Amino acid sequence: MERRNIGVIDIGSNSVHLVIGEYYNNEYFQIIDDVKVNVRLNDGLAETGQLEKQRMAFGLETLSMFTSMCEAYEIEKIIAVATAAVRKASNGEAYVAQIKEKTGLDVEIISGEVEASMDYLGAINTLDVKDALLMDIGGGSTEFVLIKDRKKVDGISLPFGSIDLAEEFDLADEVTDQKLKDLDEFLKKAFDETPMLKKAKGLPVIGVGGTIRNVGRIHRSMIDYPLEIAHNYRMKSNDVKRICEMAAKMNFSERSNLKGLSKGRIDIFVGSSHTLERVMKHIDAPELIISNAGLRDGIIYNYFGYNEDNLVYDIFELSLVNIMLNFNVNIPHAYHVFKLAEKLFEQLQPIHGITQDVHKMIRASAMLHDVGIKIQFDNHHEHSFYIILNSGLLGIEQKELLISAFIALNHRTNKKIQIAEEYIVLLQDQERHLIDQLSLFLQISEYLDRSMDGVVKDINCVIMEKEVQLNVLTTGHSVFDDMIISECGKKFKRVFNRNLTISNKVVITHR
Amino acid sequence: MERRNIGVIDIGSNSVHLVIGEYYNNEYFQIIDDVKVNVRLNDGLAETGQLEKQRMAFGLETLSMFTSMCEAYEIEKIIAVATAAVRKASNGEAYVAQIKEKTGLDVEIISGEVEASMDYLGAINTLDVKDALLMDIGGGSTEFVLIKDRKKVDGISLPFGSIDLAEEFDLADEVTDQKLKDLDEFLKKAFDETPMLKKAKGLPVIGVGGTIRNVGRIHRSMIDYPLEIAHNYRMKSNDVKRICEMAAKMNFSERSNLKGLSKGRIDIFVGSSHTLERVMKHIDAPELIISNAGLRDGIIYNYFGYNEDNLVYDIFELSLVNIMLNFNVNIPHAYHVFKLAEKLFEQLQPIHGITQDVHKMIRASAMLHDVGIKIQFDNHHEHSFYIILNSGLLGIEQKELLISAFIALNHRTNKKIQIAEEYIVLLQDQERHLIDQLSLFLQISEYLDRSMDGVVKDINCVIMEKEVQLNVLTTGHSVFDDMIISECGKKFKRVFNRNLTISNKVVITHR
Repeated sequence: MERRNIGVIDIGSNSVHLVIGEYYNNEYFQIIDDVKVNVRLNDGLAETGQLEKQRMAFGLETLSMFTSMCEAYEIEKIIAVATAAVRKASNGEAYVAQIKEKTGLDVEIISGEVEASMDYLGAINTLDVKDALLMDIGGGSTEFVLIKDRKKVDGISLPFGSIDLAEEFDLADEVTDQKLKDLDEFLKKAFDETPMLKKAKGLPVIGVGGTIRNVGRIHRSMIDYPLEIAHNYRMKSNDVKRICEMAAKMNFSERSNLKGLSKGRIDIFVGSSHTLERVMKHIDAPELIISNAGLRDGIIYNYFGYNEDNLVYDIFELSLVNIMLNFNVNIPHAYHVFKLAEKLFEQLQPIHGITQDVHKMIRASAMLHDVGIKIQFDNHHEHSFYIILNSGLLGIEQKELLISAFIALNHRTNKKIQIAEEYIVLLQDQERHLIDQLSLFLQISEYLDRSMDGVVKDINCVIMEKEVQLNVLTTGHSVFDDMIISECGKKFKRVFNRNLTISNKVVITHR
Repeated sequence: MERRNIGVIDIGSNSVHLVIGEYYNNEYFQIIDDVKVNVRLNDGLAETGQLEKQRMAFGLETLSMFTSMCEAYEIEKIIAVATAAVRKASNGEAYVAQIKEKTGLDVEIISGEVEASMDYLGAINTLDVKDALLMDIGGGSTEFVLIKDRKKVDGISLPFGSIDLAEEFDLADEVTDQKLKDLDEFLKKAFDETPMLKKAKGLPVIGVGGTIRNVGRIHRSMIDYPLEIAHNYRMKSNDVKRICEMAAKMNFSERSNLKGLSKGRIDIFVGSSHTLERVMKHIDAPELIISNAGLRDGIIYNYFGYNEDNLVYDIFELSLVNIMLNFNVNIPHAYHVFKLAEKLFEQLQPIHGITQDVHKMIRASAMLHDVGIKIQFDNHHEHSFYIILNSGLLGIEQKELLISAFIALNHRTNKKIQIAEEYIVLLQDQERHLIDQLSLFLQISEYLDRSMDGVVKDINCVIMEKEVQLNVLTTGHSVFDDMIISECGKKFKRVFNRNLTISNKVVITHR
């Protein structure tokens, strides 16, 4: 097998991070390891202007371990970058030289602008968003990118991050009103001196970085959100505000019991989350879109030839193909089933009356309806449900993803859809009805190509008052007509209040 | 990629069945499709001695579809066999010739003895059982194989199956006492004329075939069994008896509402399940071990060179390797973690005091702890739990499998183990404690090789009254000592009531 690994090391101000990606030539890409050590190079930097010896030593030790790890993974390329702490420190370049000498690693100190660009590349290639203000709160800097029509219009890096704020305004433990007031004044000045923020008025914020991921996790935990998906999680500004204010009212020990907040972030969370909230208020952002992808992902996209002028054209499609290849899906069959399901959807428009855009859900559920076979053929519809929900399909809303998973789950059952209790909060009656309808189309389509050979060339639905006649044009052997009626007939009657009948016609095509 | 597919077609008395297996040269094997059509070739055979025209036509149509399906899968080899119905019918050979003419398929009519042998090969290579009576109830015949020390000692095929019994004793709908009495008399005579059954006294029954799978499914549904694993499901004789008696008391329409009973089997279930129960009584079998593998699997094993003198040597190991390769597990890391976990288990014997044989659970959970990365690195411990539970690992008890999954689930968390409500019925306090202990060993071991490079060469635990000192010999960079203490220390204290400390020694090995 021609698997190849690449490694990206990110020497940040709070943590030093290694990501290992595996890829196949012209096939798929996947993260296979991700390890982070809280080195905190930024500690004390503001006071002395220098990296502390102890932090540097810990960083070196970590990098030496990462280097050995990369060797174990037989990495074809390591890309190592250093950001704010090393950038700002007067001994930053000397430290990079020392790293080279001790570990052989070539570390590039990247500018705030490059950092912002990579953040942008990571986020814009994994989120289906056109216009937004991207904000990445790091340990020692904060990047902003103004995105319009997927293009990077402007970018800036401000030289403070979660660690600086916590130190400067003494926010590690109890946060008094006075401290917050001082912080607010500081932020107001910084924002006012950043004219691009004015151009972001009314845009959603794409949030990158540990602080923002923690805000999302705290929120999901608070509302018992049933999906554990960090990327593309969306929050209204009010919810962001509520969480930031709550954290600011807690002292250190109270915060250490806050579910969703990482241990390594208890002391530096208030300043940075407060900054997020202030930015959202400043530009009047309607919502926060959390991105799990940022700098490191941007570097990987860049390595694969993507750049600001060459973005991933269709995030959803690329991701779908990636997953199909990763799980060895029978693509001709999946595609045939998708086309048939789409035809059923179109032809039965008069009786289903669905007006919302369900295209992605039909496509995701049809292309991945058999993906669970990789786990085991038995009960593979259940495994497909699990994989669809958990394998990180991009470019689709989380709720649409859940619905797609349920559609696939129902592709081998004639029973009324059962929603596990944990998901009920997310799916209303109307959405359950949608799952019933779309899963019925998928199930019929799956039976039409149960022989896996594309025998059905076309279908034509005739809608009558009490009946729907499904006319099937095939090129050969009989299809599973009886099975379709026995497996789907009752459900069809329940969902559309019409009897389903099938009529077969064998045609010889000259294609 | 050098994926290759083989197809096995089994023309049975009740159904015609196609299984597609995919394999890699010297790598893994997996079922990727499995389709069955209830053709019922046996219908009416008893009366006329011939296959009915209509059934033959339906069979041909099905086989023509299967042939096209095999072409779509680019099968390298199709193996097609016919069993009892074709074997018994006077026009069986003519039918096979007709199949050859119409579809090109070479069908071999196999004898009852060969059928029994293949059943045996399928079951014995997938179940960790030494001595048993194998019983395969088909539509038109019933096979028995006496197994001692994994060897086939004797085999026989009786010329009646579920369809014959249902027809002969009129058991499709209401079953009167008189009908059962007649059936009993018939069975008694058949059993008495089968001397090998005497030699099976006291052995468990390995059950193969749809009837027996249905018995298991009905039972799992009745007791709300939380795992959906048919293979290696075990039932006490009393439970088998209860279910067979219950089904016999129901008429057709009542049985059609019996959860777990297949639609295509409602009319033929009573005779065959009653036969199962009678056999178990006849030989005084303590339990039923359900095998999902039978004839078709035996044929596949046979194709790969296994036979009665060359069985799969270690079912558990082969299956474990299969899963690791299928999910692209980092094997050197997994193996290293396993060795370390085993050492912790051995060295800490005085304080954990586990006496039961937990070897398979340690091995399964350690080798597969990272298997979930295939689905997504984020939350991969949860995905590992899912895959371990659902990917059909062989040679391990279902409860041990569940425990292994929970051990892996806990390899990245320091929290007290949470058992989802559905599994509580299967895991008692004692088993939860076992999971706590073993997952702690796994977690420490995982951190010891977190750098994936085998840097830890040996460990040595010193047990003191209030402390366990973990001495670590490494060849290089520091390991994650602080993280081990911060992530596992509290749990260690809770589980073993001792503080965990770590001491590192860098050694240079000459290996």
